[in-house]
Amino acid sequence: MASRTKTLLLAHGSSDENWRRTFESLAAPTLASVPDSTITYMELCQPSLQQSIAEGTAKGYSQFIVVPLFLAAGRHLRVDVPKMIQSLETEYGVTITLTPPIGENPHLGVAIKAVVEDTLEA
Amino acid sequence: MASRTKTLLLAHGSSDENWRRTFESLAAPTLASVPDSTITYMELCQPSLQQSIAEGTAKGYSQFIVVPLFLAAGRHLRVDVPKMIQSLETEYGVTITLTPPIGENPHLGVAIKAVVEDTLEA
Repeated sequence: MASRTKTLLLAHGSSDENWRRTFESLAAPTLASVPDSTITYMELCQPSLQQSIAEGTAKGYSQFIVVPLFLAAGRHLRVDVPKMIQSLETEYGVTITLTPPIGENPHLGVAIKAVVEDTLEA
Repeated sequence: MASRTKTLLLAHGSSDENWRRTFESLAAPTLASVPDSTITYMELCQPSLQQSIAEGTAKGYSQFIVVPLFLAAGRHLRVDVPKMIQSLETEYGVTITLTPPIGENPHLGVAIKAVVEDTLEA
């Protein structure tokens, strides 16, 4: 059987329910369009990255791609998340690939321009 | 003379030079397209919001629109930035309008889907 890959959109997490709802809306078009994708959180929200890896592994996924819903790489993405991933790979015997944060892709700058234009026209 | 409006793209700020470069790239399409726009920072980078308001006021701007380059509103946007803005309005005698964070506009979710599709095709 071919190994199955799951895509995890990784948000920071917050105790603020509105914050979480914004991220769920941000993820919605991707989750509706990309098979085997879900949203997960670094801290303060569930499912945590560990819960998502545990659940995915139990369902037969052996590879995970983690796409950070962060505009840029700060300490979390440079240090904390890679450490978490290394530990989870060992614990669950899976391969987890961390991609650059979404803000490093030119699509985001183009979208920001559209948002600002919307805002100024409103 | 009609009052002049300046658009400030407000990023969080970081001591990490790569982080700052990512935000400069994110802002570039907007700055190239929207007249009287610039990037400014809440902390750790310059120009600070205060510097940008001071400079804009000196150049004759009396209205500012602050568009947060944040995916969602956490404590900074709910509490800290409104406080800074209120204080700057009083100090400089200008009007400063804070818009929702970019992540609350549907363009962002669509862009994230495009980024994830790029990532999975790569």
